[in-house]
Amino acid sequence: MATSVDALRGVTAITVTPFDGAGAPDWSGYEAIVARMGEAGVQVITPNGNTSEFYALSRTEWQRANEVTAAAAGASVVMPGVGYDVGTAKDMAVAVQQLGAPLAMLHQPVHPHQSVAGWVAYNREIAQSAPGLGFVLYVKDTRIGSDALGSLFDACPNVVGIKYAVPDPLRFGEICASLGTDRVAWSCGLAERWAPSFWPLGAAGFTSGGVNVAPRLSLDYLAALRSGDQGEVRRLWALIAPFEELRAEDATARNVAVVKEALAQQGLCGATVRPPAGDLSPQQREQVTEILASWAEAGY
Amino acid sequence: MATSVDALRGVTAITVTPFDGAGAPDWSGYEAIVARMGEAGVQVITPNGNTSEFYALSRTEWQRANEVTAAAAGASVVMPGVGYDVGTAKDMAVAVQQLGAPLAMLHQPVHPHQSVAGWVAYNREIAQSAPGLGFVLYVKDTRIGSDALGSLFDACPNVVGIKYAVPDPLRFGEICASLGTDRVAWSCGLAERWAPSFWPLGAAGFTSGGVNVAPRLSLDYLAALRSGDQGEVRRLWALIAPFEELRAEDATARNVAVVKEALAQQGLCGATVRPPAGDLSPQQREQVTEILASWAEAGY
Repeated sequence: MATSVDALRGVTAITVTPFDGAGAPDWSGYEAIVARMGEAGVQVITPNGNTSEFYALSRTEWQRANEVTAAAAGASVVMPGVGYDVGTAKDMAVAVQQLGAPLAMLHQPVHPHQSVAGWVAYNREIAQSAPGLGFVLYVKDTRIGSDALGSLFDACPNVVGIKYAVPDPLRFGEICASLGTDRVAWSCGLAERWAPSFWPLGAAGFTSGGVNVAPRLSLDYLAALRSGDQGEVRRLWALIAPFEELRAEDATARNVAVVKEALAQQGLCGATVRPPAGDLSPQQREQVTEILASWAEAGY
Repeated sequence: MATSVDALRGVTAITVTPFDGAGAPDWSGYEAIVARMGEAGVQVITPNGNTSEFYALSRTEWQRANEVTAAAAGASVVMPGVGYDVGTAKDMAVAVQQLGAPLAMLHQPVHPHQSVAGWVAYNREIAQSAPGLGFVLYVKDTRIGSDALGSLFDACPNVVGIKYAVPDPLRFGEICASLGTDRVAWSCGLAERWAPSFWPLGAAGFTSGGVNVAPRLSLDYLAALRSGDQGEVRRLWALIAPFEELRAEDATARNVAVVKEALAQQGLCGATVRPPAGDLSPQQREQVTEILASWAEAGY
């Protein structure tokens, strides 16, 4: 598990799940996207994350996405997303182990009525059911602090990483200050734009959807963050920001469609998303074209 | 379907799913709670809503909850909750029809990246897959307005009700003013406390978790709202408010546990909830005791 945990201190790609004209997954397009990231040296690849439209896939499609990823990922560590109710998440963890993947990313529960203690119990029960599998926990609730996370670190040696996705660097810094940065790998779960604000406070990696489109760009950005080259961080931050801003608009309605549109313009897959995810207007597609042109001009 | 739609202009009970000491559903406790509501004349009973811990139940438990409800509901209309991805929701709609229930409540999708058009497509695809089943759509997103709902009313004659659960009476009023109040039954999806603020603007019913505990109280409150007796509305509102306030605390962490604790104190079922839902402290259990005493004093 140690090597896999090291990989979490890097770029974690969240895949897209491309669809064909009939609305079924396009597994050959998917494979090409994953293989390109593996060849580029992306540290971790996560099928079945939010950008993968996890909540719009069937259980059969969930399984197939994991299998295709494992076959195409090369040297990248495969970390499938698991989730839903406790029983389903446990079943998914078993399937991830059977696949031979070393890590799983446990989604935030979708239940509308959660307490901090209940969130801890949910994560503990699932992680303890598969002690041989490393878990990265997805934190999207500002109420989750160092007491909650510390109790999980104590109870579950196989909790090896945190994907922190609350847009509050001070809260993140407070948690890292209290728990230290050695016990688990801390990842900025809000992608490239937020990574610099989390980095000096304890983050050693970030998750990314954009890496599907430009693997080298995300990896160069990681290198800049690691080296502390402020000028290079700012240069690449400005290059990536318009893409992430477009993904964030309208309550992140087009988070997935922007990535797929860029991949479609690269000829790698179709651009469609499943409901309730949002589609792009012709004007937004044009914006994607302009962003890709700016990346090409910069050598990406 | 017409009689069922009339029932939506009333109290829609969202059941709790009680658990036994081993954590499995206690179906005989469940049956007793449903039967009491049926005998009291509650208009609609919804298994597998949020208060039912829908997102913590297995698919088998989902089915069983619907069956037990149908068997115990007496003259109440049964309206199971359906949801998740489009394929799963369609399968659930088929199962609801096989059970003979006339209506289904379609949960808000759990997908984190939604557009208004995507939300419309999600609801349309599911509703059109089961034209013989009446659907109540659950609105929790303030972006959903009269254009989105109007297009669904046009495309799906079997969309017969809206459970409006955005805490914004002006937005609700605007939508009802635009679409009228005849095409579907409008329900305040935020329970008893919010109902008076939605009522004069178009609501003709409300959903309730508290009705599990005190069926006659919710029905008397409905009668007061219908008759426009402001004094009686205010008297019952004040009686119900402390219960709903306790359920709303801490981002609704104990929404379910408060209802189950009250039922446990009535001797009807156990008080446990599944993770990630929150449990009550001894002090909060004491508050429930005090609220029940105040209801008893008022004749409930």
